[in-house]
Amino acid sequence: MENFTFYTPTKYVFGRGAECKVAELSSQAGWKHVMIVYGGNSAIRSGLLDRVKDSLGSIGISFIELGGIKPNPTDDKVYEGIELARKERIDALIAVGGGSVIDTAKAIACGVPYDGDFWDFYAGKKTVTEALPVGVVLTIPAAGSEGSGNSVITRIDGLHKISLRTESALRPRFACLNPELTYTLPPYQTASGIADMMVHIMERYFTPTSEVEVTDRLCEGLLKAIIAEAPKVMAEPDNYDARANIMWSGTLAHNGVCGCGRREDWSSHFLEHELSAVYGVTHGAGLAVVTPAWMTFVARTNPSKIAQFGRSVFDIKATDDMTAALEGIEALRAFFNSIGLPISMTALGIDNPDIPLLVRKLHENKGERIGGYMSLGAAETAEIYRIATDF
Amino acid sequence: MENFTFYTPTKYVFGRGAECKVAELSSQAGWKHVMIVYGGNSAIRSGLLDRVKDSLGSIGISFIELGGIKPNPTDDKVYEGIELARKERIDALIAVGGGSVIDTAKAIACGVPYDGDFWDFYAGKKTVTEALPVGVVLTIPAAGSEGSGNSVITRIDGLHKISLRTESALRPRFACLNPELTYTLPPYQTASGIADMMVHIMERYFTPTSEVEVTDRLCEGLLKAIIAEAPKVMAEPDNYDARANIMWSGTLAHNGVCGCGRREDWSSHFLEHELSAVYGVTHGAGLAVVTPAWMTFVARTNPSKIAQFGRSVFDIKATDDMTAALEGIEALRAFFNSIGLPISMTALGIDNPDIPLLVRKLHENKGERIGGYMSLGAAETAEIYRIATDF
Repeated sequence: MENFTFYTPTKYVFGRGAECKVAELSSQAGWKHVMIVYGGNSAIRSGLLDRVKDSLGSIGISFIELGGIKPNPTDDKVYEGIELARKERIDALIAVGGGSVIDTAKAIACGVPYDGDFWDFYAGKKTVTEALPVGVVLTIPAAGSEGSGNSVITRIDGLHKISLRTESALRPRFACLNPELTYTLPPYQTASGIADMMVHIMERYFTPTSEVEVTDRLCEGLLKAIIAEAPKVMAEPDNYDARANIMWSGTLAHNGVCGCGRREDWSSHFLEHELSAVYGVTHGAGLAVVTPAWMTFVARTNPSKIAQFGRSVFDIKATDDMTAALEGIEALRAFFNSIGLPISMTALGIDNPDIPLLVRKLHENKGERIGGYMSLGAAETAEIYRIATDF
Repeated sequence: MENFTFYTPTKYVFGRGAECKVAELSSQAGWKHVMIVYGGNSAIRSGLLDRVKDSLGSIGISFIELGGIKPNPTDDKVYEGIELARKERIDALIAVGGGSVIDTAKAIACGVPYDGDFWDFYAGKKTVTEALPVGVVLTIPAAGSEGSGNSVITRIDGLHKISLRTESALRPRFACLNPELTYTLPPYQTASGIADMMVHIMERYFTPTSEVEVTDRLCEGLLKAIIAEAPKVMAEPDNYDARANIMWSGTLAHNGVCGCGRREDWSSHFLEHELSAVYGVTHGAGLAVVTPAWMTFVARTNPSKIAQFGRSVFDIKATDDMTAALEGIEALRAFFNSIGLPISMTALGIDNPDIPLLVRKLHENKGERIGGYMSLGAAETAEIYRIATDF
């Protein structure tokens, strides 16, 4: 096991009516004037946005709004938000939405007190030492941004999707999680969220670090719980308990508890970020194609942990590692397929991916080599995109 | 799943040399004058106390000391600490030790700014709203107090062992966890700590709340990891990775992540607290006797979750719930026995327990009925003590 620091000072309020706690939590934090950040019309139509505003207004917390955040959120809204936040001298941001909304709020949060361009943080040129606090009302269990210190933004210039990871500077102050708010998610979005949270666990699970029994068992346990609950939420969108289990899994998948003491490997996310940036695919759906391709590639030379995944998560009985690995990958693809996710590039709507472009952008953004479980250069990442294309 | 709030703002610094971070963490917290709380001679002999003092002194943090905290810590040391802390106007407490030392530091922490008797908090007459901050250097993985908001103190007058549970007011500000510090623990103390952390998980696992897949899988996963690592630490006390897995399990067992969204049942702890208070037995060893007795009793009328425990944690194959439950209990007892723990009252050194006294004190302290998975009155708790005596 490797040394680690684990610090998750986010207060989670979970359950029916959790969003109504926003005002109380904001008041406890001493906020008086906030920016509500949200996405499209669903938060308005559902009445959620009004409930949040009423809640804040009822105790005299004033607010401004920044709406219209889109999936795979872009830097134009971040710049707009930073300008507005400075002009209005807000105390904090409240993100009402999923990962895209939260990640935008985080980018604004670190951008406001910083003299330079907020991209400096994402490019690794600067460390976030100061940021406005962020509160969250979560509507999409997927990205795990409600409990993480991370943010992913797409730079419009060149379509680069770039991630920032902080230990705690950008962890939300609080997160309100009401599973009922997820009843109306379109099935494809529910399923994509499930793939996203599963891969958050898997990119921690596939580690070169040995002797990590505790986190191995946590990862496997969470994955099994998600796989058991997923068919229920797909069949009964308003099954409270199934929605609750999926929602809490999404938070635990990415708040860091599954990664304590182990090297991680975020190759599948990096490979997918280029698909999202270039072809605009839904992140979780892209992962459902790319991750099994990555697993197939690494299993050729290093099948042991992929085999352990197959045996522990999908109950594969094969004693030979290569067989167990390949059967586990097929079981994972069958699972993704069963909840309506694409499992090939074609099904993702990309018939003929521009692999040289994807590979070039990937290594431009992430360096010459990526990966912890297995180090990958341009030849290897190209091969993984090819495997995904041939699925 | 039930509604919950989960807030764990403790910063964990884990790994080799973690104790050397005490000064840096204290300085970040703005502490200038602290009280170091510790137990017996082992912290002195091992040089740990000197390392902590040197670390603090090197950056100009001054300190006073309160040593001599004993297992099953008593209120006399709490009163002594409160008086000393007030006189010296300390900013914070640093506990160097295991659960007894940390729990004493927490009792002092909430007692110092409070006008009345600190027992008011433990008796449920007052809620802790203000407390001095506490930092921890952990030397015994067992109680989980380094990550919890809880504290257990024994009132010398009447030998009542009473627990206090706070959401976050008494959670340590930071905890330094170096597995190497546990190499020299006596085998009996290592094993007792393992039983303690396992039962912390089990008292969350045995719940009447249904549809808690996520936390069920986390509990089972952690238990399996502990059971796999325990024989290694017993056979090779200086096996770093095994010690590390056990140490981190002890924290996760009790920081609350295993109990999110579920009712808990702390009957075994309550039953054991009376054994510790009256007979002075080691808490974890007492649990190794009492918990299987509690499981045996509740399985008679409600075997389902005990059966699930047997199947999921010890791989029991029986399809009949009662059989699976009883075989699971036997497997647990065999495991405790294999790491050198007592599994009967006699082995615990109590040949003829005064059951009426234990039952009277238990219900005096905890109310007429205890338990969540199954509600227990005096007749039932007496029967559980009898089962433990007949093992």
